[in-house]
Amino acid sequence: MYTVCVRDHLMIAHSFRGRVFGPAQRLHGATYVVDLELRRPQLDADGLVVDIGLAGTALGKVLGELNYRNLDEEEGFEGENTTTEFLARVVFDRIAQRIAAGELGEAARGIASLRVTLHESHVAWGSYEGALPPSARP
Amino acid sequence: MYTVCVRDHLMIAHSFRGRVFGPAQRLHGATYVVDLELRRPQLDADGLVVDIGLAGTALGKVLGELNYRNLDEEEGFEGENTTTEFLARVVFDRIAQRIAAGELGEAARGIASLRVTLHESHVAWGSYEGALPPSARP
Amino acid sequence: MYTVCVRDHLMIAHSFRGRVFGPAQRLHGATYVVDLELRRPQLDADGLVVDIGLAGTALGKVLGELNYRNLDEEEGFEGENTTTEFLARVVFDRIAQRIAAGELGEAARGIASLRVTLHESHVAWGSYEGALPPSARP
Amino acid sequence: MYTVCVRDHLMIAHSFRGRVFGPAQRLHGATYVVDLELRRPQLDADGLVVDIGLAGTALGKVLGELNYRNLDEEEGFEGENTTTEFLARVVFDRIAQRIAAGELGEAARGIASLRVTLHESHVAWGSYEGALPPSARP
Amino acid sequence: MYTVCVRDHLMIAHSFRGRVFGPAQRLHGATYVVDLELRRPQLDADGLVVDIGLAGTALGKVLGELNYRNLDEEEGFEGENTTTEFLARVVFDRIAQRIAAGELGEAARGIASLRVTLHESHVAWGSYEGALPPSARP
Amino acid sequence: MYTVCVRDHLMIAHSFRGRVFGPAQRLHGATYVVDLELRRPQLDADGLVVDIGLAGTALGKVLGELNYRNLDEEEGFEGENTTTEFLARVVFDRIAQRIAAGELGEAARGIASLRVTLHESHVAWGSYEGALPPSARP
Repeated sequence: MYTVCVRDHLMIAHSFRGRVFGPAQRLHGATYVVDLELRRPQLDADGLVVDIGLAGTALGKVLGELNYRNLDEEEGFEGENTTTEFLARVVFDRIAQRIAAGELGEAARGIASLRVTLHESHVAWGSYEGALPPSARP
Repeated sequence: MYTVCVRDHLMIAHSFRGRVFGPAQRLHGATYVVDLELRRPQLDADGLVVDIGLAGTALGKVLGELNYRNLDEEEGFEGENTTTEFLARVVFDRIAQRIAAGELGEAARGIASLRVTLHESHVAWGSYEGALPPSARP
Repeated sequence: MYTVCVRDHLMIAHSFRGRVFGPAQRLHGATYVVDLELRRPQLDADGLVVDIGLAGTALGKVLGELNYRNLDEEEGFEGENTTTEFLARVVFDRIAQRIAAGELGEAARGIASLRVTLHESHVAWGSYEGALPPSARP
Repeated sequence: MYTVCVRDHLMIAHSFRGRVFGPAQRLHGATYVVDLELRRPQLDADGLVVDIGLAGTALGKVLGELNYRNLDEEEGFEGENTTTEFLARVVFDRIAQRIAAGELGEAARGIASLRVTLHESHVAWGSYEGALPPSARP
Repeated sequence: MYTVCVRDHLMIAHSFRGRVFGPAQRLHGATYVVDLELRRPQLDADGLVVDIGLAGTALGKVLGELNYRNLDEEEGFEGENTTTEFLARVVFDRIAQRIAAGELGEAARGIASLRVTLHESHVAWGSYEGALPPSARP
Repeated sequence: MYTVCVRDHLMIAHSFRGRVFGPAQRLHGATYVVDLELRRPQLDADGLVVDIGLAGTALGKVLGELNYRNLDEEEGFEGENTTTEFLARVVFDRIAQRIAAGELGEAARGIASLRVTLHESHVAWGSYEGALPPSARP
C-alpha cells in the first residue's frame, strides 16, 4: 500500500459542553496542524498516489471553510462538541466529497482510503481514518 | 476508525545481555518519549475517543512505576532484556489493565485497540499495538 | 553561557483589531507551545541553571492564568492585540516576577536573562528575550 | 504487533516527466529523511524485533546506492518518475532482498512486514508498506 | 528583543567543487526547510514585529527564485559552492533588499536584524544572521 | 555570523546528589540528542563554516567517550552532578580541544564560538555556548 501525506494548519475558537471537559468548557481555541494521508494499492500512470498540488489545494480549501472562526457559531455543528477527533472526521468527509467530485483529478479516483490527523499540541493529537465510500470510486 | 494520542516520557537505566547488543551490554540509560494511541470505531456520547485527561493521568501513573529507576533491579523484569519494543508491550499491558479497571472512565470500555510507541532517540523508536483483551470490553 | 529550557502549552481564543490581520480579525484561537529558556553564566552549587521542577511549575502557573480563556475578555489586555510576540512578552514579565519573588528558588536569582518562545503552528513562532530587571538579581 | 523503526537520509537530484509536475519537470533535488519500520508478531530470543545495528547498516547501504546521485541517470530508473512514493517502494524492495539474504541476521526472518517512509519536506511525505514476500520468510 | 519566524521550503539540485566534499562533488540535491527570523526591539503600532503574511509572501518569492532549479546553472552563482551556509546568506541578502524596498510594509523598517536557517536534513542545518544594512532602516 | 549544526545522540546512566533532584537521586538514565553548532564570521575558501564530515566525526568521538556508560563511575566526574547543562559544557570543552588540535581541519581554526545543546526529552533541554579559547585560534 502506498501513502502520500500533505500538511497544513487551522486556527479556531470553540468551547465544549459536558463536565468531562473541565476548564475546556470555557471559550478557548486551538491550532490544529493537519495531516491528510491518501492511500492506494497501485500508483497512477505518472507514478503518483495523487497530484500533491491538487491534494494540498483541496486540503487548504477544506480548512479555509473553518479557519479563523468560532466553531460554536458555525452552521452544521449545532449540538456537537467539536473535539479534535470529531473535526478529523469532518475534514475526512469533506476531502472525500472533493475526491468524488473530481477536484483531486481523475486519477485520484483510485484512492482507497484516507487518514486525517489533527495535532492539537506537542503532546496530543486525534485522527479519523477509513475506506472511501463507493461514490468516490466509480 | 478514530484515534487519540497522548504523549509523556520516562528516564531509566538498564543493561542488555547478549552479544547482539555490543556496548549496550554495559549499564547505560535512555529517555523514552512515549505515545499512547487509543482507537475505537465510534465516538462516545461526548464526542470523544476517551477523556484525554484520564488517559494522560493513567499514562503518567504507568510511566511513574518505571521512571527514574534501574530496570535491571525491577521486580518482574528478571531474565528479560528491557528493550524498547519489550517496554512498549509492558506499557500496553498496564494501560489495558487500567482501562479494564475503569480508570479511564466507563466510556473507555469502547476502546478497541491500543498502540504504544517509545521514541528512544531522534533516529529510532519501537512500538507494540494490539486489540484489547475481552476483559477490557465487557 | 548556560541555558536550560522547559516546554508547556496553552490554548486560547482571541481576535485582532486592524486591517493588517485580515481574517484573523474574527474570533479564532490558537495552541501556543511555549518554550521558557533561562540563562546564566555559571551553574549553581548543584550543577544547575535552575531547579527544572520549579521552573516547570512556574511556567505552568503562568500559562494557567491564560489557559482555556478568551483573551479578548481578560483584564489587563484591553486595547491590546494579543499577538504571539505580545504574549511572549507577557509570559516573560510574569516569569521574571516569579523569579524575583523567589518561586524558582534562591539559586535562581543568578539567572541573567530569559527567552520565551510561543510556537503557534508548524510554520510560525514568536519570542521575547531580555536581561532580567535588577529586582530579580539582588 | 511489534514495530521497530530506524531513520537515515538521502540527498538526490532528479526531474519529472508529465505536465502534472509543473516546475518539478526541471532538474531539481530533494533530501529524503527515511524511516524504515520492521514488524513482527513476536519478539526474537533476545527480546528484539531485529538487531537495530544491522537494520541501520542495511538501510545505510540501500540509501548509499542512491545517495549524492542524479536519479535521471541511474540504471534501472529509465522511463520512471522517481517520485517519493516510487522511491519508497524501491527502498522497500531492496531492504526485503537484504532480509531474505540474511543480512539483518537469521532472527530477522521472522519479520512479517515493512513500511518505508520518505519525508521530503516539513509538509509532505510518502510511504510504501507491505508484507514480506515468501522468499524472505523460509 | 522580539523575534518572529516564518517557515517555508525549497528543493534544488547542485554539486560542489573541492575534495573536502567527497561524494557531494557529484550532482545531487536537497530539500531546505527555511526559517526566516525577523527581530526588533519594540513592537509596531499593531503589536507586531512584522505583518507575518507579508513576511511569508516575501520568503516565498525569494525561495521561488531558486526553487526547482539546478543551482550549478543559475546566474550569479558561477564559481561558488552553493553550500547550506552560503545559501542562507543569499536568502538573507534578498530578504533584506525586499525589506528596504518596502515589500514587508512600512513598519518593517523597524526590523533590526534577521536570521535565516536552512535545515538540510534531520541531522544538519546552517544559518546566517546579521544586522540589517542602513539602507533597510531609513 | 554563519552557523552550522550537526546532530548525534548519547545514551547514559547516572544519578544525582542533592534533595533538589527528588526521584532523580536514584540511578536512572537519559538519551541526549546533541546539537553541535559552530560559528564564524566569514566562510572558508570552500564556502564552508567547517567540513561537516569532520565535525560529525569529532562529535561522534566525543560522545563515544561517554556513550553506553554509567557516568557515576566515569573518571573525571567524581563529586559532580552530571546534569544536562554540565554535560553540555563537557562536550563543548572536548570539541574545543579537538578543534585546537586540528582534527576538524586547518580551516576550522577560523571558528569563533560553539554552542552545544543536549535535548533530554520532548519538553526539556540544556546548552552551553561560548567563544573558543585563544588556543583554538592561532
